[in-house]
Amino acid sequence: MKDWKDWDRLITVDQMEEATASLLETGAKVGADSWQQRVKNQTPHCGFGEAGTCCRICSMGPCRITKKAPRGICGCDVHGIVARNYLRFTAGGSATHSDHGRSIAHTLYLAKEGGSYQVKDPEKLKRIAKEWDIETEGKDIYDLAHEVALTGLMEYGKPFGVQRFTKRAPEHTQELWDKAGITPRAIDREVSQSMHMTHMGCSSLPEALIRQSLRAGLSDGWGGSMMGTELSDVLFGTPKPVDTEANIGVMEKDMVNIVVHGHDPSLSEMVVFYAQDPEMIALAKSYGAKGINVCGVCCTANEVAMRHGIPMAGNFLQQENVVLTGACEAIVVDVQCIFPALGPLSKCFHTKFVTTSPIARMPDSEYIEFHEETAAENAKAIVKMAVENFQNRNQDLVNIPQLKAKARVGYSVEAIKKCLDGVTNSHVDELGTLKPLADVVKAGVLRGAVAMVGCNNPKVRPDTAHIELMKKLLKNDIIVVVSGCSAQAAAKAGLMDMEAKEFCGEGLKRVCELVGIPPVLHMGSCVDISRMMVLAADLAKDWGCNISQIPLCGCAPEWMSEKAVSIGNYVVSTGIDTFLGVDPYSKGSEEVTELLQGETGIKQWVEANYTVELDIEKMGDMMIERIEQKRAALGI
Amino acid sequence: MKDWKDWDRLITVDQMEEATASLLETGAKVGADSWQQRVKNQTPHCGFGEAGTCCRICSMGPCRITKKAPRGICGCDVHGIVARNYLRFTAGGSATHSDHGRSIAHTLYLAKEGGSYQVKDPEKLKRIAKEWDIETEGKDIYDLAHEVALTGLMEYGKPFGVQRFTKRAPEHTQELWDKAGITPRAIDREVSQSMHMTHMGCSSLPEALIRQSLRAGLSDGWGGSMMGTELSDVLFGTPKPVDTEANIGVMEKDMVNIVVHGHDPSLSEMVVFYAQDPEMIALAKSYGAKGINVCGVCCTANEVAMRHGIPMAGNFLQQENVVLTGACEAIVVDVQCIFPALGPLSKCFHTKFVTTSPIARMPDSEYIEFHEETAAENAKAIVKMAVENFQNRNQDLVNIPQLKAKARVGYSVEAIKKCLDGVTNSHVDELGTLKPLADVVKAGVLRGAVAMVGCNNPKVRPDTAHIELMKKLLKNDIIVVVSGCSAQAAAKAGLMDMEAKEFCGEGLKRVCELVGIPPVLHMGSCVDISRMMVLAADLAKDWGCNISQIPLCGCAPEWMSEKAVSIGNYVVSTGIDTFLGVDPYSKGSEEVTELLQGETGIKQWVEANYTVELDIEKMGDMMIERIEQKRAALGI
Repeated sequence: MKDWKDWDRLITVDQMEEATASLLETGAKVGADSWQQRVKNQTPHCGFGEAGTCCRICSMGPCRITKKAPRGICGCDVHGIVARNYLRFTAGGSATHSDHGRSIAHTLYLAKEGGSYQVKDPEKLKRIAKEWDIETEGKDIYDLAHEVALTGLMEYGKPFGVQRFTKRAPEHTQELWDKAGITPRAIDREVSQSMHMTHMGCSSLPEALIRQSLRAGLSDGWGGSMMGTELSDVLFGTPKPVDTEANIGVMEKDMVNIVVHGHDPSLSEMVVFYAQDPEMIALAKSYGAKGINVCGVCCTANEVAMRHGIPMAGNFLQQENVVLTGACEAIVVDVQCIFPALGPLSKCFHTKFVTTSPIARMPDSEYIEFHEETAAENAKAIVKMAVENFQNRNQDLVNIPQLKAKARVGYSVEAIKKCLDGVTNSHVDELGTLKPLADVVKAGVLRGAVAMVGCNNPKVRPDTAHIELMKKLLKNDIIVVVSGCSAQAAAKAGLMDMEAKEFCGEGLKRVCELVGIPPVLHMGSCVDISRMMVLAADLAKDWGCNISQIPLCGCAPEWMSEKAVSIGNYVVSTGIDTFLGVDPYSKGSEEVTELLQGETGIKQWVEANYTVELDIEKMGDMMIERIEQKRAALGI
Repeated sequence: MKDWKDWDRLITVDQMEEATASLLETGAKVGADSWQQRVKNQTPHCGFGEAGTCCRICSMGPCRITKKAPRGICGCDVHGIVARNYLRFTAGGSATHSDHGRSIAHTLYLAKEGGSYQVKDPEKLKRIAKEWDIETEGKDIYDLAHEVALTGLMEYGKPFGVQRFTKRAPEHTQELWDKAGITPRAIDREVSQSMHMTHMGCSSLPEALIRQSLRAGLSDGWGGSMMGTELSDVLFGTPKPVDTEANIGVMEKDMVNIVVHGHDPSLSEMVVFYAQDPEMIALAKSYGAKGINVCGVCCTANEVAMRHGIPMAGNFLQQENVVLTGACEAIVVDVQCIFPALGPLSKCFHTKFVTTSPIARMPDSEYIEFHEETAAENAKAIVKMAVENFQNRNQDLVNIPQLKAKARVGYSVEAIKKCLDGVTNSHVDELGTLKPLADVVKAGVLRGAVAMVGCNNPKVRPDTAHIELMKKLLKNDIIVVVSGCSAQAAAKAGLMDMEAKEFCGEGLKRVCELVGIPPVLHMGSCVDISRMMVLAADLAKDWGCNISQIPLCGCAPEWMSEKAVSIGNYVVSTGIDTFLGVDPYSKGSEEVTELLQGETGIKQWVEANYTVELDIEKMGDMMIERIEQKRAALGI
């Protein structure tokens, strides 16, 4: 066995690609399509679309901006068109991410003693209630849950006032938001206003459109997503460090494999629960399986990994791979980032492709509508269907590449603070703060931190940017906090193994050893980027500086979804410089580019901006440089 | 003077185009751009965009469907892509239209005794309060107004329940909606859900996407738009028949011309008010003007015409013409359908292009942010700016084509019922019903009705479809109710002149004479299509049949905006067959086309569907045929 200090101890992208290649061979045998093939078919992409210079907002068009045609039929110029497209892109992401939070609030509203959904973290519930000025004294915990849930649901549509959680931000940040006119009101209202502003004959002034993009983003990050995170913790428990495994090898040859995929833990929690039902396990054995193995793909994987140690089979661009193993009895999905390709693909195998949400209806799927009210019944039916499907497996097609890595996951802000408590002197220091973290950064033991998030995108060699950037940052004593598909990239490679400290610079290694953490901290699914916002806010408060002064960057090197742009907007608005590895269809306008990436746009409003850099090596250098600049400015 | 029976008595499209040509000559002199030129620059349009087969919903793409590339990178097929684009298009329209209603509700919330905004129709306010189960007894009218306004604002974001106004529909219609799962919940929620469903990796099943399109449309038509209409009536008075004039000749050579353009009457009402202020008129005279002439463009024109008899200078595609007269001191806009082109165009003249809404910020404009709280001050500043600008007019450029027609406008449902009361036998018949209308249709004196609505679109020779279809329908004893830019087309041509009865078939002519109405009834602006829904609902109730049985069609022959698709969806969902003269970017999918236009899609759910027909002559024949089929089915 190689020494841990050697990068080769990691599972490499080459190995993962080799595994994928062998799976695609099976696909070829059964006549399956693949994203790799579809990328070829769709290349080259439309240049107007990629630059954001095509407008389809009314039926006079579509209009495309060229030298010969510098304005659309309505007279909108390229800057207005690009900015409108950018705001619409954000609105799509904000609506989507936030709707996840609404669904969780709704689940909490239906929670009851002895029901499918219960309050697992009553202390967190009470903390949120207090933040929201809801009386907690002498109240039944479920009455309180319903009151908090209803208050949360009203955050989507209240006619007056701003998002409650914005009060969590440092005062300075709140002042910046107010001054910039971007403090978010009701979440759905920001979505509707974004759609209205971008309607034919409304806004074409880039500045106004970009401001609304930030506001809509904030309504997600400090509104809907934050509720998604916080209320999930109340319902399903606040994550604590837990050991799991990641990569395609977590699928089990001799077991019924149920893959949960999507985002909302309301479904996956129930599937996990019923997969452990002795009745179901007995049924599985009756079909000759050794048991039931649930594993996750995409953000659902993060949700169930950090709360139950359920293994993670892959991230976004590996969703087809789980089916291609030939050993997937069911892939059970809820919402977002689910390839419609899974429909036809599953038909090439025995796999049941089970859709469950009215939000995400797809052709060629078995539709079992999942309702919180009938969760137990629905989940049991799904697990049963998967178990019964084991007998239909074609053993000739089974191929589970033996790749998997250990990972410790589940670093909620609460968990991080608890880890840090372990290194404080409890006689002198206050517990439950981020001061020890601030102290090691000030001391230069850690140079800073990067929050790495986002999806995969075939425009980047999948997972390479995530993994290579992390390796570089770790070597430079920069701690990395991750979520979403970025988290899974790290886990799959082995960067969340406790031993991965060996890859780090001396400072970071020492911190990992002292605090007992891996150098890449798994903070959850993509809604959990809200945890990173709370972390940054609390760190600034404990440090006594502004968020924008902290040696900290955000990074989404392989992002692909509208949610990622919504996220980017709230991360930047929170004061965190953010680096993107894929252009958000905005390069067609110099004005928009300047607003997003220059010194005179959002940088002036929120003290942070974007950098779009397609060269990953350069991007890593730029982040390190930015962190060192922030250190220098602080005089540390 | 020609005889009225002769079509030549109308102002023809040829004459209007001749006038436009002379205005474009001025434009050429001053180096102005024009939509006519931009259409040339933008032709041909992108075939993928026009067919709806291009997807830009995530940054893996854009993807375009071809034979070689039958699926996007995610695996979505052409039907999913077209249906998603259709739902997004609807969501844009629904959000936009509904936001207008929210703005009016907000204005009502701020109304006060002696304030800029007052309750002008307290009876209507009480009627709405009763419908909404709000206690009216012994309540101060402004307390009641605030309670109704707040209840209205909650319709945008309430976490539970459906739109209150849906109860106005016949029971049968409500049942259809419930069964189809399209009864609309909170308006903004339907927008957000539409965005979520169309996010990458959510819905790709056309049926689900089209259902949500109907639901989002209904949340507009029976929600946001209906509130826009009803609460506008409460604030500014329920329209009654009033005489006005229409076409470019309503601008006055010797007066300060202020053109109001956009949609929300909160602004235009105030401008109209302050333009009548003796202080302002004196100021105008001091600059050598004979007075102040306010005229309208687009839906704002409809709003102020039907409440104050303010003349209508033009519809959507004539907005540049008012500036090109060289006699426009200010074009004052709020939201929607405003050409960004007005910015650069106004710079070629002395015209002040005044934007007022944070929703519609445009380059090259004077921005005077309009707030309900400071309405008087803002409106006065705008009027003053216009008056002071009279001195800057370049007389050499002034050219006001002498085209204008008389029009009687303002046929709210209340006004129509009142007209019908005039032909009932008050000793025998119930007053305030639509029974007399039902009776003349049953008798065959009128064959039926067409609701004609929507914009202009350069894809159709502007106004021709509106006017030619109306002429054909009138000749065939089919009464036409109109709103929006269609209404202005009719008014500009002269079809709302009381004498236009002479163009009608014998039956319709007799009805016009008896009831004392023009054959084309002006029902208001585009939000006022909700009036048509109430008319259809009340007619079905008074008739004792379903809406879908009434010999009635909807028609938008020159539509261009997303709002029009939202409208189409709620009109069809209300049970009214709807004819479109421009394809809603949906022709790329047979499945979507079948769902929208076939017998097995929405027709099954709501008893009505779409017809897309680009040949206007054919479309007229088809509507007449449809009306006759409905008559035959009823045995009348």
